[in-house]
Amino acid sequence: MIDFPESEFSELLEKLRANRPLVHVLTNDVVQEITADVLLAAGASPAMVVAPEESGTFAGIADGLLINIGTPTAERIRAMNLAADAANEKQTPWVLDPVAAGGIPWRDDVIRSFVAKRPTVIRGNASEIRALAGFSSSGKGVDSCDSSDSALEAAKLLARTVPTVVHVTGETDYVTDGERTVSISGGHEMATLVVGTGCSLSALVAAFAAVTPDRVAAAAAASTLAKRAAEYAAKHAEAPGSFHVHYIDGLYLTGRKA
Amino acid sequence: MIDFPESEFSELLEKLRANRPLVHVLTNDVVQEITADVLLAAGASPAMVVAPEESGTFAGIADGLLINIGTPTAERIRAMNLAADAANEKQTPWVLDPVAAGGIPWRDDVIRSFVAKRPTVIRGNASEIRALAGFSSSGKGVDSCDSSDSALEAAKLLARTVPTVVHVTGETDYVTDGERTVSISGGHEMATLVVGTGCSLSALVAAFAAVTPDRVAAAAAASTLAKRAAEYAAKHAEAPGSFHVHYIDGLYLTGRKA
Amino acid sequence: MIDFPESEFSELLEKLRANRPLVHVLTNDVVQEITADVLLAAGASPAMVVAPEESGTFAGIADGLLINIGTPTAERIRAMNLAADAANEKQTPWVLDPVAAGGIPWRDDVIRSFVAKRPTVIRGNASEIRALAGFSSSGKGVDSCDSSDSALEAAKLLARTVPTVVHVTGETDYVTDGERTVSISGGHEMATLVVGTGCSLSALVAAFAAVTPDRVAAAAAASTLAKRAAEYAAKHAEAPGSFHVHYIDGLYLTGRKA
Repeated sequence: MIDFPESEFSELLEKLRANRPLVHVLTNDVVQEITADVLLAAGASPAMVVAPEESGTFAGIADGLLINIGTPTAERIRAMNLAADAANEKQTPWVLDPVAAGGIPWRDDVIRSFVAKRPTVIRGNASEIRALAGFSSSGKGVDSCDSSDSALEAAKLLARTVPTVVHVTGETDYVTDGERTVSISGGHEMATLVVGTGCSLSALVAAFAAVTPDRVAAAAAASTLAKRAAEYAAKHAEAPGSFHVHYIDGLYLTGRKA
Repeated sequence: MIDFPESEFSELLEKLRANRPLVHVLTNDVVQEITADVLLAAGASPAMVVAPEESGTFAGIADGLLINIGTPTAERIRAMNLAADAANEKQTPWVLDPVAAGGIPWRDDVIRSFVAKRPTVIRGNASEIRALAGFSSSGKGVDSCDSSDSALEAAKLLARTVPTVVHVTGETDYVTDGERTVSISGGHEMATLVVGTGCSLSALVAAFAAVTPDRVAAAAAASTLAKRAAEYAAKHAEAPGSFHVHYIDGLYLTGRKA
Repeated sequence: MIDFPESEFSELLEKLRANRPLVHVLTNDVVQEITADVLLAAGASPAMVVAPEESGTFAGIADGLLINIGTPTAERIRAMNLAADAANEKQTPWVLDPVAAGGIPWRDDVIRSFVAKRPTVIRGNASEIRALAGFSSSGKGVDSCDSSDSALEAAKLLARTVPTVVHVTGETDYVTDGERTVSISGGHEMATLVVGTGCSLSALVAAFAAVTPDRVAAAAAASTLAKRAAEYAAKHAEAPGSFHVHYIDGLYLTGRKA
């Protein structure tokens, strides 16, 4: 395992901003606004196109796609299926965020049906990744009660089985394709008190995956950017309301000339 | 009527943070993010599980439940019914927020059907509580045009009739079970210019109700926390954008060691 | 073409705050919260009433209506149709925001069906207005790739054809009924990095249209307020997270005594 190199991060961030990829976002009801704001601040272009009548068409136009199973409904799941199929057909990278995997059987079935479509990257917390890999897990609602270290073996197994790139986030983030694993440290725990920092990170992965064929690097670059922004926020805020504001600022300011 | 004692507030706030209750939130489209952020900042754990296929199961796992009738649709109402029934079966406390009661007959029928399930607490503004109790009311959209004082008798009557605990908020907040009534003063009127401060207060009531069997105290503790946060915000902000940020900060900082 | 006069802006802003119009908002999933916060900060009263069972009734009560085609679904479109019809019947002003017009045929059909109902004002970016007028356009997702200047002739043509008032926004904003055209300059480009500043401007147009029969002036006043708020934000923020907060503050503080 290696630390993700700074030089590779800088290069990918520049590429993201030069290309401004259009990210098709199918996410949950709670984090729509922060996800759009995170993508805009980072340098990408978000578009939430959610009706089954147009989600397939739009996924074929977009540069990357996020499917987040946070608040699935029958109609939204239909739209997500059409979008994932279109992305696969056009070889557009797409990210699956398996929110609260391991909790409710109906939701787990939904999540498994998307894993079967072979997402480009699966991004989750330790409890979710452990659950998907068939390990015991102890999530509580949408929060992880397992450490990301404890999910590393699960992540590698899941990556080899699907096969895909698995991105497990926590105090340290890990990205693995089952063979190559990179780690990203830093960040700040107050990010867990702002709803949507995890979900919007998955959208950032889709944005970076749109500008490089190396999906391990794409996920690692997204993690690095999020952790830098959290460190910036922690320097400027002592509570979650301010942290949120400075987190968005940090995404924008990271890597820009003063 | 008595003022809610400071010592009781401190004790319940500590208990909330020690237990970090999981609050199942079924709320309107507008306030999803602020509701999650408010619960996280206060010390609880939010989860929006909205599909009828899983809302009943999840309500049986959660420590408290909020049902907010802000933007009801047929499918969401179905999910809410399953959740309320599951909460009743497991004796999980649940809060009903009857947004804009007294306005539109169809919505009033929806609200009445949930009142009939005997929520643990009903939290509304003066116009909503007056309308539910059968008093004349003068709401305009989602805003109250009546004072909370004018709704106190309506609140007591409603509390005895259902029976339940009624929590009416405004310049002064009142909580009553029909016999015992406590009042909570303070706060700041700029909170009314930030969407979701009322709706998210109802979520806080569900969080506190998860850590004490005394539901009058639970609602009063939630009101106290919200009013403290608003006072903190008013000290640091002169307009609603900044007020929102500092309100979330205030929820987090209240009762924590410096 | 003339600049929108300062005195007219001040007068309409005072009128808005004196009347506090109730704006019925049917908008997309992403911008619900910022739209409500923008209306509240400016001095209007937002209400999101979205179920087909009540949207028509409510549109008949409200002072203005916004229909934003951002994330349409079959059920939401049904609610929007009922609301637009009720507004037309009661001669309540309503604004159409044709998000991403010119992109996907299904969405364009939806948008055209609302244009056919003759909205009081159509507010869009240059790519959207060009597409609606039958000009070539180059939008990318929800963002415009055309300048507002390039859409001015399209706006005039569209205004005469429908007929309606067309409001095209960009670096300079233009409002035209096909004969009279006013321009509004100023603002700040960082507003494009905060999701919902455009969508919520359409809601502000509905609010101003509720307090004056001169719809060109209403749209121009909304543009002026938004540009003032953006200028205020740019003075206080150097990145989009802070910009968002100060933008809301700027809407509130503009035109108020210190």
